[in-house]
Amino acid sequence: MAELLVLYHPPEDPSVFDEHYASVHIPLAKNIPGLRDYRISDGPVSTPDGQSPYRLVASLSFDSLDAIKAGLSSKEGGEAVADLGTFATGGATILMYETKSV
Amino acid sequence: MAELLVLYHPPEDPSVFDEHYASVHIPLAKNIPGLRDYRISDGPVSTPDGQSPYRLVASLSFDSLDAIKAGLSSKEGGEAVADLGTFATGGATILMYETKSV
Repeated sequence: MAELLVLYHPPEDPSVFDEHYASVHIPLAKNIPGLRDYRISDGPVSTPDGQSPYRLVASLSFDSLDAIKAGLSSKEGGEAVADLGTFATGGATILMYETKSV
Repeated sequence: MAELLVLYHPPEDPSVFDEHYASVHIPLAKNIPGLRDYRISDGPVSTPDGQSPYRLVASLSFDSLDAIKAGLSSKEGGEAVADLGTFATGGATILMYETKSV
């Protein structure tokens, strides 16, 4: 398996961000070919010492890193990535990697 | 479910880090009470633009945020956390949050 992890930095308007993420971005991201599982943080993202700087963490699972790259390069992937610019006003850190169970 | 996500920043000596993580830290972390699933990055952690600054990403799943806190507060959790100081020479970002499937 492989993971596409998206860490959203604090947006200008958190309630606008939340609304757009739920009603627009999730439907777009679910269209990405090869997506096997899609989980998001539910409520605050914290650290052992208190609140973290992140508004949301999304974890999208695919069969492989190649499947992630193919998904992002697709028309549907392009639409989801382009949508980031419309609501992720604080920016986002996007990480991708193969995973293994230990 | 809830996720304990550990993002490891570049260690001083990557090969020492990798060896310690595999042979010492994984066995310690697997002892944390309440741990349901444990996945780690396998190979480089990249971004859409190239290499990321992270050496390793670990994702530990629990039933709830309370289960994560209880796990970290346990004797076994304390041992795993204390071990971080012995090999995570670049530091680590630790995030925890409830998750939902979308």
